[in-house]
Amino acid sequence: MSNADIFPAPGSETESEEGVVFAPRFDAHGLIPVVATSAQTGEVLMIAYMNADALARTIETGEAYYWSRSRDRLWRKGEESGNIQRVVEMRTDCDQDAIWLKVEQSGEAACHTGRKSCFYRTVPLGASPGGGVSLRFIDAERQFDPAEVYRHSGAAKGTLKSRE
Amino acid sequence: MSNADIFPAPGSETESEEGVVFAPRFDAHGLIPVVATSAQTGEVLMIAYMNADALARTIETGEAYYWSRSRDRLWRKGEESGNIQRVVEMRTDCDQDAIWLKVEQSGEAACHTGRKSCFYRTVPLGASPGGGVSLRFIDAERQFDPAEVYRHSGAAKGTLKSRE
Repeated sequence: MSNADIFPAPGSETESEEGVVFAPRFDAHGLIPVVATSAQTGEVLMIAYMNADALARTIETGEAYYWSRSRDRLWRKGEESGNIQRVVEMRTDCDQDAIWLKVEQSGEAACHTGRKSCFYRTVPLGASPGGGVSLRFIDAERQFDPAEVYRHSGAAKGTLKSRE
Repeated sequence: MSNADIFPAPGSETESEEGVVFAPRFDAHGLIPVVATSAQTGEVLMIAYMNADALARTIETGEAYYWSRSRDRLWRKGEESGNIQRVVEMRTDCDQDAIWLKVEQSGEAACHTGRKSCFYRTVPLGASPGGGVSLRFIDAERQFDPAEVYRHSGAAKGTLKSRE
């Protein structure tokens, strides 16, 4: 199913920015970036991508679907781990080329490494990166053991944020 | 300056996910997606892209630099509007292919349309998108008049979220 079958083609700049017609702009690969935040805490959980089909299913079902770039297939978030995302609110941005989901994350962990968020390390500021930048772990406690949740590591990789 | 001159090449999956070496993964265009949230409210302000140079400058200066895709050049956020972003915290995700910035947004508006956030419209859930989806405006009050802030609309477009 092509994008044109599901969503209208983007209109003028003014229509995109000030209109009420949802006409998302997909990139050359047919994808749109998505940021998912916790509806409870506001924390950024992950950044992933949707194609038109994933976006349509998310709108219809209220559960987050993404496009797995590594496996080149639709990916229902939590299909393997059970850690699904119920969408509380979806927004699009000014030029309709990005999506923001506020979600209720089941299992308390959005990241395949078992953490609440994929963003469990900070990048220190103020120094020139030329000398090397050392990340610092933060909010990095595991909510589950990925080795237990994803028994078939080869199969699991593709369903995960890490390799989509 | 190539990416290799600034940041080390990404290592193994384990090194990317569990290590402390910051070795960001840029896409085929040399870009990495960035979500900026308000350090005050947690609200998602915008999604944009950085190349290695923009990422390095952001780390060094603590002010957000992006890569303008439309103008194909480095873009210091607020260089024209004055609405700069001071970075309070930077994080990277599990596979180091995305960046999260918590910022103090000067001028109270991140969006070139004058709104606080680029995400000023919701996408209603529950219906099949085939019938057309009508966006709803939310938190859409303008903090400034874009016609006044960006006097040269042609020049301005390239510096803006809308067309980068």
